[in-house]
Amino acid sequence: MEVTNRYIVTKTHVDGAPEESHFELKTASLALTVEPGSNDVVVKNLYVSIDPYQLNRMKSYSSSQSAIYFSVSITPGEGIDAYGVARVVASGNSKFEKDDLVVGLIAWGEYSVVKEGNMLSKLDPMGFPLTYHVGILGFSGLAAYGGFFEVCQPKKGEKVFVSTASGSVGNLVGQYAKLFGCYVVGCAGSKKKVELLKEKLGFDEAFNYKDETDLKSTLKRYFPDGIDIYFDNVGSEMLEAAVANMNTFGRVAVCGVISEYTDGKRAAPDMLDVVYKRITIRGFLAADHMNVYSDFISTTSDHLRTGNMQALEDITPGVENIPSAFIGLFSGDNIGKKIVKIADE
Amino acid sequence: MEVTNRYIVTKTHVDGAPEESHFELKTASLALTVEPGSNDVVVKNLYVSIDPYQLNRMKSYSSSQSAIYFSVSITPGEGIDAYGVARVVASGNSKFEKDDLVVGLIAWGEYSVVKEGNMLSKLDPMGFPLTYHVGILGFSGLAAYGGFFEVCQPKKGEKVFVSTASGSVGNLVGQYAKLFGCYVVGCAGSKKKVELLKEKLGFDEAFNYKDETDLKSTLKRYFPDGIDIYFDNVGSEMLEAAVANMNTFGRVAVCGVISEYTDGKRAAPDMLDVVYKRITIRGFLAADHMNVYSDFISTTSDHLRTGNMQALEDITPGVENIPSAFIGLFSGDNIGKKIVKIADE
Repeated sequence: MEVTNRYIVTKTHVDGAPEESHFELKTASLALTVEPGSNDVVVKNLYVSIDPYQLNRMKSYSSSQSAIYFSVSITPGEGIDAYGVARVVASGNSKFEKDDLVVGLIAWGEYSVVKEGNMLSKLDPMGFPLTYHVGILGFSGLAAYGGFFEVCQPKKGEKVFVSTASGSVGNLVGQYAKLFGCYVVGCAGSKKKVELLKEKLGFDEAFNYKDETDLKSTLKRYFPDGIDIYFDNVGSEMLEAAVANMNTFGRVAVCGVISEYTDGKRAAPDMLDVVYKRITIRGFLAADHMNVYSDFISTTSDHLRTGNMQALEDITPGVENIPSAFIGLFSGDNIGKKIVKIADE
Repeated sequence: MEVTNRYIVTKTHVDGAPEESHFELKTASLALTVEPGSNDVVVKNLYVSIDPYQLNRMKSYSSSQSAIYFSVSITPGEGIDAYGVARVVASGNSKFEKDDLVVGLIAWGEYSVVKEGNMLSKLDPMGFPLTYHVGILGFSGLAAYGGFFEVCQPKKGEKVFVSTASGSVGNLVGQYAKLFGCYVVGCAGSKKKVELLKEKLGFDEAFNYKDETDLKSTLKRYFPDGIDIYFDNVGSEMLEAAVANMNTFGRVAVCGVISEYTDGKRAAPDMLDVVYKRITIRGFLAADHMNVYSDFISTTSDHLRTGNMQALEDITPGVENIPSAFIGLFSGDNIGKKIVKIADE
């Protein structure tokens, strides 16, 4: 059986803020079968993850592109791999059977052909919506869990600041930190997001950074006794302001620097603070923390079942809407994990 | 008995590069006795340490001034405490007797009155010159040892870059790293220093940064396979260039940022590199590593006795020359540990 597969490609490299004109919806016929002797797995995509880091892959050049296999350069005109949940339609790999639910690196499209060796595993939904496995129980969740517990090494009562706190990772860091017994302040880019952080997710405080003119003073106001942990998703001025307000032996976990992705503007923290306050600034990727994967899944699913944690999701339907969903990440359109629903389950 | 004590003070705060006009040699009569009931210790200073960090104490404001007791602000017109070796002339403290050699926080002057609770201990020279206890066996040595072994966590064969490699701490980091089995490249600011690093101290390579126009390319040339550890003494452009050349899981130990002390110019490392290469940038102070103090002393004194390590010292005589010795730190005049000899032993 053959279908017409619709999928998203970039038309050129993207070296600034992404725009609709950078993207194209392509169609190609695809056989829903596997050649004899091939180990390919053909899957029908259900939900795909929309993440800011993809922009670094779209650039003509980014140092990120040589870092790890899923961060390699995206070639204009070719399919774009992304994390997501799918259903197997044909398998040449004995690990997968037709109709299996799977999670892993699929594509921004209706179908994906997953080669052997690529990240793909069978998915047990454990009674949760499938979208949870793209976000809170997927790599966004692992980034938050590994980044907070492993990189930040929190102690109860410490003061935690989270930027892009209503984003896919930030909202979870704040929830983990609160459940762990920290004081948590988040920043976000709208009044609605700020209210949500405080009222739905239990942040102690939150503020809209767009209302502030001097971020150092703002953070001083929210942290009169200083910041112990800064979970950084934005970089640039916010990182500078956080370092200025950090306590001795403070830790900065750098998960992402979205403000630097589009314009290359750099953070310039005061290194005198770094030395004298003995601050640690550490970059990390979720994939580094597979050692805590089973803890992450059991802890998070327990919290979800008891209602102690909330999955904050922002789901758009339709493969054709992937570009706008992606573009919206850089103007703060999403609230929580951005997911595009490709097909009914 | 009373003497005329000559000592150095600042005339004003110093908010840029230090100049002779910022300093003054003051005189005051001093009783070489201790009042009954006082715990003071009066010492005759022999050697005092001349360190870049003192500039941060001289500023009208620096975030460093609230970090730790020996980094507090220096008040214009008042004596300046500094690490050094001295001999007790009178003691109200039962731990010290007349003629004891001591090491600790004394003053930029001929005599010091050390209050109880200030850092001072009896010194066993262990057969080494007294100056070694100001530098290689003092806080410079501990900064190098603790910074390299504890903060950088080196593995044999790793590639290490050291800036201000002929400075008081840098030259020791390079020597420790070589003895540990690392590949070591240092940078310094003159041909003479570069030769010394390679010929006397055993660095694998060294270069004069003043001869280079593009530090990123320079480091690429010396580290075609990347840098695993950067021991940073300068900050700014060199930190940026090192981060750009670092390997995955690279570590930056920030011991000092001398290039940022005088002009406030900031380093702006590429945070995308920090994230994707999972780089750790960590500031530290020697005082944080007292836990390895006895290891440091035994290892270093063994290396000195076997001739595996060299003490690189730059000694100027005369209390009146403290300002010029200090000013010279910021133009790279010193080669190795800068010490002013105050009196014959």
